[in-house]
Amino acid sequence: MSMTILIAPSGFKESLTADEATACIAAGILRAMPDATILKAPMVDGGEGFTNALVNLTGGTLHRLSVTGPVGDPVDSFIGFMGGQPVRTAVIEMAAAAGLRLVPRDRRDPCLTTSFGVGELIGAALDAGAERILLGCGDSGVNDGGAGMAEALGVRFLDDSGRPLARGGAALRHLASIDMTGIDPRLAKVRIDAAVNWHNVLLGPKGVARVFGPQKGATPAQVEELAAAMEVHAKAIERATGIQVDTAPGAGASGGLGAAVLGLLLGRLHPRYEIVMQYLDLDALIDRANLVITAEGSLDGQTPYGKVPSEVARRAKLRGLPVIALAGTIGKGVTLNFEHGIDAFASILKRPCSLEEAIENAGKLLTRAAEDAVRLMSVGIRLARPPARIVRRMAENGLVCHSGDTGLLRPHSD
Amino acid sequence: MSMTILIAPSGFKESLTADEATACIAAGILRAMPDATILKAPMVDGGEGFTNALVNLTGGTLHRLSVTGPVGDPVDSFIGFMGGQPVRTAVIEMAAAAGLRLVPRDRRDPCLTTSFGVGELIGAALDAGAERILLGCGDSGVNDGGAGMAEALGVRFLDDSGRPLARGGAALRHLASIDMTGIDPRLAKVRIDAAVNWHNVLLGPKGVARVFGPQKGATPAQVEELAAAMEVHAKAIERATGIQVDTAPGAGASGGLGAAVLGLLLGRLHPRYEIVMQYLDLDALIDRANLVITAEGSLDGQTPYGKVPSEVARRAKLRGLPVIALAGTIGKGVTLNFEHGIDAFASILKRPCSLEEAIENAGKLLTRAAEDAVRLMSVGIRLARPPARIVRRMAENGLVCHSGDTGLLRPHSD
Repeated sequence: MSMTILIAPSGFKESLTADEATACIAAGILRAMPDATILKAPMVDGGEGFTNALVNLTGGTLHRLSVTGPVGDPVDSFIGFMGGQPVRTAVIEMAAAAGLRLVPRDRRDPCLTTSFGVGELIGAALDAGAERILLGCGDSGVNDGGAGMAEALGVRFLDDSGRPLARGGAALRHLASIDMTGIDPRLAKVRIDAAVNWHNVLLGPKGVARVFGPQKGATPAQVEELAAAMEVHAKAIERATGIQVDTAPGAGASGGLGAAVLGLLLGRLHPRYEIVMQYLDLDALIDRANLVITAEGSLDGQTPYGKVPSEVARRAKLRGLPVIALAGTIGKGVTLNFEHGIDAFASILKRPCSLEEAIENAGKLLTRAAEDAVRLMSVGIRLARPPARIVRRMAENGLVCHSGDTGLLRPHSD
Repeated sequence: MSMTILIAPSGFKESLTADEATACIAAGILRAMPDATILKAPMVDGGEGFTNALVNLTGGTLHRLSVTGPVGDPVDSFIGFMGGQPVRTAVIEMAAAAGLRLVPRDRRDPCLTTSFGVGELIGAALDAGAERILLGCGDSGVNDGGAGMAEALGVRFLDDSGRPLARGGAALRHLASIDMTGIDPRLAKVRIDAAVNWHNVLLGPKGVARVFGPQKGATPAQVEELAAAMEVHAKAIERATGIQVDTAPGAGASGGLGAAVLGLLLGRLHPRYEIVMQYLDLDALIDRANLVITAEGSLDGQTPYGKVPSEVARRAKLRGLPVIALAGTIGKGVTLNFEHGIDAFASILKRPCSLEEAIENAGKLLTRAAEDAVRLMSVGIRLARPPARIVRRMAENGLVCHSGDTGLLRPHSD
């Protein structure tokens, strides 16, 4: 029996998607252990790559279309439909219409950028007969509380003179009422499930504007302006539909898009890995594997708090499976991970180098690291293997371990 | 039966001695595998740490004394006597009297620095009754062809007017004759064995002045001056004792000290690891171990050509033992090492950093790397371990693997 290894990495920020990381690790494993059986579970979050991953995993289809981008110009975008589902299920990643990558560096102003295109993608999914919509949130370049998205679906945001507001988060400071009468009636019949970072809230000191505004280009003054606008927005949503979004987990996801999904489109928010793992059927893959290799750009004392390697390790541990984690940077407090299901880790770095060099060479380094980790592990396999003489006598005595099959059994609780 | 791990690392240039590296690796192993039995074989070369290592290994004694340093000022130095030897054996490292570290940076002029203090150390060993002298060569700050050392033992270096030369390598350009009449008569009765880099020759394009002169502070003009002086020196040695040192392997060791050991003191030169491994009794340690962990500052395609990890791996392989190598930098062509007995390697680096940071933190990083490597290996041990039910039946059937003792046997040829 040869070894079956499940590869379940996160993407490496700014260098490798989860799919690419999976491919690199697979290549490295096979260099060290050519007869290994590889199972793949790229751990996308709700951000870039979400649609492709779920479409690929289910044998679905991808559809290209043009929508309004975050700064108002048209952008090439896409939606997916999953294969093999009991209801027609569309997959949309908000980043494909309002992602930070779609905002030119010289126009990074989260007071003005809009999620309007995300609403257009939802509309296109409805046009194509979607009965359920899976909406991935993450990697956004907007901070408009999902108002743009809702507007594209017929919701009207009005000031105290009853005039429609301009697009962008800052305009919401002048929001007096939300008019739901024009909302696309098809929305009442579809279920929208959004995959969000459960820790993102809309308001307060850990609210979306304060935590994510700066990386989207907001100045300190703009952060305060947006934070105030989100408060006005939350109150208007509650007046319009009776739904409180101010403290709801995930309502702050993707510049507050979560708030509009929850409060205006009457969708549901889910911790992002719950969604992804459900479709990956990670638990079933774990049941077939002898070992799990996970990875993330950085592994440290924060990893146990909801990062991919820890989520994967938690599930693997429930089934008694060993877990190896690979990381670009191994940081402070990393040994905490030993208490959370990770048995061993290795850095992908092989020599002194800058962060930029590491990012540029991440693919090669990750492949090499996977190979090295498996070679180290193989030394252990070799050391633990019973000698030939014992194996022969085991076979004579009818024990299931026989020559060529002496180890690599599923780990047991002993 | 728990695991026995032999630690046999080189020192890490500019950061850890072989002894320190050994201690770091031991600490890391024990963090991951507290019941491991540790065997230690710090792989010193002939340079700094040679005396201490051999004295420690044999339970010998260390003696402190003051001698003439490489720039003429007195320096605190030492010699050792080995324990448990059939003849009274002194250990001397030339670096303790003429090492580069003893030459202040503003006085790094290999035309002038002298090995005189090395001769004083040999004299002190003779005074203390040495019957055999083990002389470690490496890390030198001189280029005087060992003339200073020989002078301290009574040899006279004369110009064509019969006047003694000044000390330092450059003066040897004026060497006309070597007067051996005053040499310490006790030298005729002791055997001197020098541990040298076998690849260091005295003359020619790969001669000592050209290869090592620059790192000792020589300008290009001084390199040529010293190269010419070494030619004159070699001819004078041959006239004085009939011994050819111009192409002898190791004669260029430690600024040509090897030439004087061979040609004037009538000692023997040995590839440095032969000497070290003989006293370490590395082969006997390998026979007791399940696994070898070696290490060096850099591991790459050059490693198989006489570097410590490759020497250690070659010997381990003859006995079928797996070998793991740890390194600060893993460089080009490293996979060549798989053909030379190294089964797996790991870098000590854990995040992007400069060479200086890596050197500064080498101890911590090496400890961490050893821990991580053993953890990865342990995943393999766990995967290969037969399940409890089989182990029980193996015990019932009188097979030697029984509970708690299921693996970790010496590797066998199967």
